[in-house]
Amino acid sequence: MLADLKLPEDLKKLTFAELEVLAKEIREFLIETISTHGGHLAPNLGVVELTIALHKVFNSPVDKIIWDVGHQSYVHKILTGRLEKFNTLRQRGGLSGFPKPEESPHDVFATGHSSTSISVGLGLAIARELRGEHHKVISVIGDGSLTGGLAFEALNNAGHLKTNLIVVLNDNEMSIAPNVGALSTHLSRARINPTLYKMKEDFEQFIQKIPKVGETTFRYLDKIKDSLKYLVIPGILFEELGFTYVGPVDGHNLRQLTQTLVEATRHQGPILIHVLTKKGKGYRPAEDNPCKYHGVPKFEVSTGQLQITPGPPTYTEVFGATLTEAAAADQRIVAITAAMTQGTGLKGFAQAYPERFFDVGIAEGHAVTLAGGLARAGLKPVVAIYSTFLQRAFDQIIHDVCLQGLPVIFAVDRAGVVGEDGPTHHGVFDLAYLRMMPGLTIMVPRDENELRQMFLLALQMDKPVAIRYPRGHGTGRKLTTVEAFNLGEAEVLRTGEHAAILALGPLVQRAEEAADRLQAAGIHSAVINPRFVKPLDKKTILHWARRVPHLITVEDHVLTGGFSSAVLELLADEGIRKVQISRLGYPDRFIETGTIPELHSVYDLTAEGIYRSVTGRPLTLVGGDKWK
Amino acid sequence: MLADLKLPEDLKKLTFAELEVLAKEIREFLIETISTHGGHLAPNLGVVELTIALHKVFNSPVDKIIWDVGHQSYVHKILTGRLEKFNTLRQRGGLSGFPKPEESPHDVFATGHSSTSISVGLGLAIARELRGEHHKVISVIGDGSLTGGLAFEALNNAGHLKTNLIVVLNDNEMSIAPNVGALSTHLSRARINPTLYKMKEDFEQFIQKIPKVGETTFRYLDKIKDSLKYLVIPGILFEELGFTYVGPVDGHNLRQLTQTLVEATRHQGPILIHVLTKKGKGYRPAEDNPCKYHGVPKFEVSTGQLQITPGPPTYTEVFGATLTEAAAADQRIVAITAAMTQGTGLKGFAQAYPERFFDVGIAEGHAVTLAGGLARAGLKPVVAIYSTFLQRAFDQIIHDVCLQGLPVIFAVDRAGVVGEDGPTHHGVFDLAYLRMMPGLTIMVPRDENELRQMFLLALQMDKPVAIRYPRGHGTGRKLTTVEAFNLGEAEVLRTGEHAAILALGPLVQRAEEAADRLQAAGIHSAVINPRFVKPLDKKTILHWARRVPHLITVEDHVLTGGFSSAVLELLADEGIRKVQISRLGYPDRFIETGTIPELHSVYDLTAEGIYRSVTGRPLTLVGGDKWK
Repeated sequence: MLADLKLPEDLKKLTFAELEVLAKEIREFLIETISTHGGHLAPNLGVVELTIALHKVFNSPVDKIIWDVGHQSYVHKILTGRLEKFNTLRQRGGLSGFPKPEESPHDVFATGHSSTSISVGLGLAIARELRGEHHKVISVIGDGSLTGGLAFEALNNAGHLKTNLIVVLNDNEMSIAPNVGALSTHLSRARINPTLYKMKEDFEQFIQKIPKVGETTFRYLDKIKDSLKYLVIPGILFEELGFTYVGPVDGHNLRQLTQTLVEATRHQGPILIHVLTKKGKGYRPAEDNPCKYHGVPKFEVSTGQLQITPGPPTYTEVFGATLTEAAAADQRIVAITAAMTQGTGLKGFAQAYPERFFDVGIAEGHAVTLAGGLARAGLKPVVAIYSTFLQRAFDQIIHDVCLQGLPVIFAVDRAGVVGEDGPTHHGVFDLAYLRMMPGLTIMVPRDENELRQMFLLALQMDKPVAIRYPRGHGTGRKLTTVEAFNLGEAEVLRTGEHAAILALGPLVQRAEEAADRLQAAGIHSAVINPRFVKPLDKKTILHWARRVPHLITVEDHVLTGGFSSAVLELLADEGIRKVQISRLGYPDRFIETGTIPELHSVYDLTAEGIYRSVTGRPLTLVGGDKWK
Repeated sequence: MLADLKLPEDLKKLTFAELEVLAKEIREFLIETISTHGGHLAPNLGVVELTIALHKVFNSPVDKIIWDVGHQSYVHKILTGRLEKFNTLRQRGGLSGFPKPEESPHDVFATGHSSTSISVGLGLAIARELRGEHHKVISVIGDGSLTGGLAFEALNNAGHLKTNLIVVLNDNEMSIAPNVGALSTHLSRARINPTLYKMKEDFEQFIQKIPKVGETTFRYLDKIKDSLKYLVIPGILFEELGFTYVGPVDGHNLRQLTQTLVEATRHQGPILIHVLTKKGKGYRPAEDNPCKYHGVPKFEVSTGQLQITPGPPTYTEVFGATLTEAAAADQRIVAITAAMTQGTGLKGFAQAYPERFFDVGIAEGHAVTLAGGLARAGLKPVVAIYSTFLQRAFDQIIHDVCLQGLPVIFAVDRAGVVGEDGPTHHGVFDLAYLRMMPGLTIMVPRDENELRQMFLLALQMDKPVAIRYPRGHGTGRKLTTVEAFNLGEAEVLRTGEHAAILALGPLVQRAEEAADRLQAAGIHSAVINPRFVKPLDKKTILHWARRVPHLITVEDHVLTGGFSSAVLELLADEGIRKVQISRLGYPDRFIETGTIPELHSVYDLTAEGIYRSVTGRPLTLVGGDKWK
């Protein structure tokens, strides 16, 4: 049926029975496709009926549907003309895993980071009023995204302005991780609504039965009856913020959903519809373990067995293990995550030290300021956040940590390009945005053992430190505690008089490969692992800048304001002008979706790219001689 | 009395009558001192009794009091041993206008930006539990600061953790500007509490009088009675977030305040005390016009007449006037501020076009994402925010504006050092944090007329644009619309073969002064107004970099990642190595408090500093020959 329909238009003609068949087909298609390519499974399985209902009731793209975060927009993509391209999802040149306006007029606004949809929706709604238009605006936001302060700022503003705006709260009792926070408790109470309804009925009958009593007593009866709304409106928090609350509604009941959405279109002012969905709905392994099946690699449909790429422990895992180990010896260590316990490798720590572990929800700003408070009181907070999401705490790092030189350790995970999640998720700005912060030390390990050393070094320092490391497997190098180094000390891996390659993080291995090839071509290049982006190892860098005619910087980061700029600033301030500088990194545009190796190859962050940068020409490959 | 007491200890011994005398003395002292030096007047007058009560009930610094934003901490400073130094307030080397731990153990945490105090307090409280300590932690936050999403994130987390934490909500019905948002409405309802209390009593009597009726009816009576809390607890929003709400309390009644705070110390779990204060209390002009007397220059005590430094219109005023004028011709222009209508020059626009003006509260993130939504719908949003506060929307500028190339104009006010407000308020990071954003144009006007041209140019572009301009008066240059220039076009103000000075913004005038002196010394220097930090005028910069032996960059900004780094990147990528580069700007540390001319002088952003940078030696001054 799915392939034969003209979508989304035909949805309006289908009966509920037919829509249910369609929902089933979409689920099968999702499971089938994601099992082949990987992607966000459980969130999309949870919103099949909701998405169908939205497109049945509303007229996209005239009516505007904004998907918060957006990893749950697959069904929306399928229903808006992208069924055939769906097997290109999350691949270079293919469909994005998130809403993308360039892709379809139905994708009203690009998303990827959390909690933006109500602000965006309010903007669209205000513009509609000013332009005298009449379409509907619908922001679909998860209960997890609602813990972000940005969502609250928008609710507060929308509730005040009273503009027509429909917020659909997709409440699956968890976002990526199980939800935390008082708001979550509030929503839990809302979920038991039916008994409250019954209570209201009982009470109203009771009131009616009471014989008329004295004036004094009854003076406020109307107001008291009014107060009953607090009994029967579970979403009083939203009511207090100026929204009309409706719900909760069964998010897998197409008839109920459709009916509620139709009613919402008649409402004046901001309205919040509380929809209960089950993450992973319709696929047993995902229903049973929605966290595990949130974002998945390829998997075996019949068993749910995930196809894990074999390899050494990831940087994330090594970080987590080192932290947990260190915490045994130092009671002051506490760890904070913003709704990414698993993703940042903190699960082990959380299990071992639950009282020293804090998942604050999708609230990066609070995570950092909280860490500032903890550090001020003598603890050693470790804040583990992905590079791209730490952008959301930029001011808090400056204002609540660095300004006072507080010893907070930032474990900046997923630094550099991250692959399939694409431009909203690449962590390619962190060196630039962290480097300007006075008093912050920035370290970049070349392998997982160095990550370990750096973390241990950071623990000994009484200052703010950021350690950035990439997504994915380490090198398999043995972990030790003995190969320590000092603050601001680079590592010279090989010497050479023709060129010096300063390669950051794991790219140093590519530099070594390039140096081998260069050696074979008679070019002797030094390879340096800077280790510190701040403070730079001035002595080492200046030594090589004075000694070689050509210096090459290599970073998994934008070229604007990053590591290479730090080197340029140093050389300029020291008056070193003879050396030629080549800079490898990302140009000044948003980096597309693609696998990490693909993107590294496109942007010359490969041994071959480095070779070419040193020689000014590609390597002529002879016979079976291939770049790794 | 004030001078004779040993504070804060002696507060515990004083009677309420004596404390009232003390409050009066403090008010007189505040008015007297601030009238002589300038500073935050109305906020401090509003918290005299609250601060006395806090220090009477709690034992600072063992108990920790955190002042949100912190401009209301003057009374706290006076009560904690800084009375004698108070006349050095907000001066270079003197007392900070904000809490500063280096200054006193009573200043637990540095603040300056809004909405951080609950996160910080929660951090301190958690640390206390982990360390087995027993002091109290009190976060004092204004109703304005509560509109910031960070405060909500912290409430949500604290309400969940149930740690003992006292939040004092200092509700003066306005922050810097009158408050906006649904939360404000919520608090207004709370203020009418007394009638609700009466209602509760009536109702309870009524319930008791009812004869016992059937089981069915009464089944839920307990729960119904429970629901009454919604009637009598005006702060239900806080209750729903897991806080116990107490209030509202008269913030100028020392007895009531003290009693409530004492009760709060006995409470288990997080508690929010709603205190009503009057901003400007005790000084008639400030009571009548709290916005005007929020932060003031010197003033005449008897009349309240502010001593306004005479001079041409400020950059802020010129921006506001240009915007209002442009809005007449272009219906699509809308303006957004984050609780700074007056400060960002938008008052005229707000009066002329109220339906196109949006004050979103202290919610910079939402301001930017809202602008993204407005721009997506075809409007031309102008977001006016101070440089230092725009840091709080860093991710939103990247993710919700630049990623989609949406035409939002950022009016980045108070860029560069801002003077007396000091390190938390200097706008010295913006070029660095904006420069990495793909697709963003960054302009820096050298005077108010150029600001006008740049704004008009930005309106014609269909792209994101940031214009950064400083605090204070313009040059008095006549405003025109005819001196237009194109995107990415620098201005060569004079030519010369010995050096080229690239000076950003109003510093270009200092460069011209320096060039005059250099000319007199036989050194011919070109002076260039780059106008654009992004895109750079490559042609012009490369031309001069090839032509002169020495190139000097001058910026009111940190040297890490700013304008000079952009120039270095350009030269490196073009292989230009001969030219010597000198960079003037701020070093890699937080810049202290001081007047703008003082700070410019300290950091060589003066004609003399530029002269010295070109010649490598100071100018020998002859006779009356003085630097302007």
